[in-house]
Amino acid sequence: MSRFWSTTVRRLTPYVPGEQRAGADVVKLNTNENPYPPSAAVLRAIGAVDGRALRRYPDPGSRALRDALAAEHGLGVEQVFVGNGSDEVLALAFLAFFTDGAGPGRGLQYPAISYAFYPVYCDLHGIERRPLPLDGDFRFDPDDFLANESGICFPNPNAPTGVALPRAAVRRLLERHTDHVLLVDEAYADFGAESVIPLIDEFPNLLVCRTFSKGRALAGLRLGMAYGSRELIDGLCRVKDSFNSYPVDVVAERAGVASLADRGGYLEIVERIVATRERTVRELESRGFRVLPSAANFVFARPPDGEGETLFRRLGQAGVLVRHWSTPELAAWLRISIGTDADMARLFAVIDAVPDIDASR
Amino acid sequence: MSRFWSTTVRRLTPYVPGEQRAGADVVKLNTNENPYPPSAAVLRAIGAVDGRALRRYPDPGSRALRDALAAEHGLGVEQVFVGNGSDEVLALAFLAFFTDGAGPGRGLQYPAISYAFYPVYCDLHGIERRPLPLDGDFRFDPDDFLANESGICFPNPNAPTGVALPRAAVRRLLERHTDHVLLVDEAYADFGAESVIPLIDEFPNLLVCRTFSKGRALAGLRLGMAYGSRELIDGLCRVKDSFNSYPVDVVAERAGVASLADRGGYLEIVERIVATRERTVRELESRGFRVLPSAANFVFARPPDGEGETLFRRLGQAGVLVRHWSTPELAAWLRISIGTDADMARLFAVIDAVPDIDASR
Repeated sequence: MSRFWSTTVRRLTPYVPGEQRAGADVVKLNTNENPYPPSAAVLRAIGAVDGRALRRYPDPGSRALRDALAAEHGLGVEQVFVGNGSDEVLALAFLAFFTDGAGPGRGLQYPAISYAFYPVYCDLHGIERRPLPLDGDFRFDPDDFLANESGICFPNPNAPTGVALPRAAVRRLLERHTDHVLLVDEAYADFGAESVIPLIDEFPNLLVCRTFSKGRALAGLRLGMAYGSRELIDGLCRVKDSFNSYPVDVVAERAGVASLADRGGYLEIVERIVATRERTVRELESRGFRVLPSAANFVFARPPDGEGETLFRRLGQAGVLVRHWSTPELAAWLRISIGTDADMARLFAVIDAVPDIDASR
Repeated sequence: MSRFWSTTVRRLTPYVPGEQRAGADVVKLNTNENPYPPSAAVLRAIGAVDGRALRRYPDPGSRALRDALAAEHGLGVEQVFVGNGSDEVLALAFLAFFTDGAGPGRGLQYPAISYAFYPVYCDLHGIERRPLPLDGDFRFDPDDFLANESGICFPNPNAPTGVALPRAAVRRLLERHTDHVLLVDEAYADFGAESVIPLIDEFPNLLVCRTFSKGRALAGLRLGMAYGSRELIDGLCRVKDSFNSYPVDVVAERAGVASLADRGGYLEIVERIVATRERTVRELESRGFRVLPSAANFVFARPPDGEGETLFRRLGQAGVLVRHWSTPELAAWLRISIGTDADMARLFAVIDAVPDIDASR
């Protein structure tokens, strides 16, 4: 604590991302990265950026990238926003739509177990947190959100559970929640959940965030986007233009455009990850793990003895990184990203070498 | 205006960056970009980024880049912060140190004519603006800031004037201003101003921001940095980790490291720009322009007839972009970035074709 810090800094408990240790021997199943590289076309686009493009500021409106994203979803370019990773897009959206005084009511409702950055953004921007409790199966019912009381935000599929809501459930919520923004964070929607992007034209208060970090294998480049009505995108642009005029650099923009042009390669990689996920679920269940139904590129699983932290440590010692939270509700569980089949074989080799897990089969 | 916007969005007047039109025929002297490309080593570093690096998240602490920056200035790595361009670094610093309640006093003092983004950040973060008037020569005296009343921020050299303060004047301010942060924005310090980075170890409330966008010719990549005491950098990290864990992408980080390794190339380019600046000042003065003494990669100049806007438009029609502001104090002036000698010849060709300017010689 420093006497020079503002009250804002003093009240913060920053988000802690998963470890980025990356030795040659490490199997990284802890940050939900794509195990496959982006397409050769993306690498070519990056290699083609020349000194003239680098010495100049990028297009502050990232028009080429937004045009490509709009075309992908049949939207107008004024319904598309891009930023420096979906974390930045979320942080700007919280500031634009959930800070106090935005109409009647205040604060933000979000699932009590969900992306751990949401309460951090709330603290950063002085937004009252209103977490919605989950049931014993880590599910929340969107019908339980109080409509028109405050903003609402949730990931679909949820994190760290991987559980997805059907589009019809989100539509039902949108039909009664019309006075504040509903932000659906589709960071993991590449892997099978029903996207609500098709509902944007119907509901002017629906904002959908997505990312290039998962299915498109570009976590290293920091590209995120949001889709919504023109008035919501306008609001986001106003905040962005009051924070950083050029959040998306020229290399990231060109790589993003190249990635979108290769839809076939993207779909093939996503299909491969989904197939590995389904095999991983079967393998875990056959060893007595409880696994929540996942529509994401990770699974949330409880070892048969419920000793999540012990297994987390053993895996780490063997060079297999997964994610574990020590809060009481989550301590029995592990979040395991889906890697290649070879990565998952390494995971199971370590699990099968643990005597108590073997014993419980 | 949308009913879904927060009060924060409603009160904003976003910053407007210079036009990024970039046809082959356009001479871009409007956004203070470097007219020379970055070194071949930077391009090689970018081309060498592979799919494995792209599919993974970057190092959230940007350690390699911060190590290189610390070594350049003989600082510890914990005295260095990096972000997605110096605009982001400034936005985070305002939040970390200038939001209300940071000790006694409040608001922010800054020169009334200076970087136009400062009042925008104030509005974004709800910081009371306390602009310090300049004299008729666009100068401010740091002795006129009220010490220990609130945070203080200014660019050195100042923008859009290019006028620099000597280090001794900043030191005098630091000796009496000890309770709040003093932010010195050295975005343009590559081109001859005295940096105050050597004062960091002496004054724990001094924060210095810099950028790769000017002398290092990497505006397209968005890399900015801040130097300060460990406690100030800690505060910045806490805000960054509550906003976006990975603001610097893997390509930008590697390009930044490669740029720092080529100190000779950097100094050569800076020297060339300074030489062109000095020639440009002489040429403008010989045509009756008033030119403020510049320590930056731009000059602030008043045409002999004081018709800044007319000349701005004529230059634009001829494909020579410069920057003009229509506020009463600035309307007679133009800010002209320093390009190559050939770029400046294009500028003077247009100026010399204007009859009224010719007449006033």
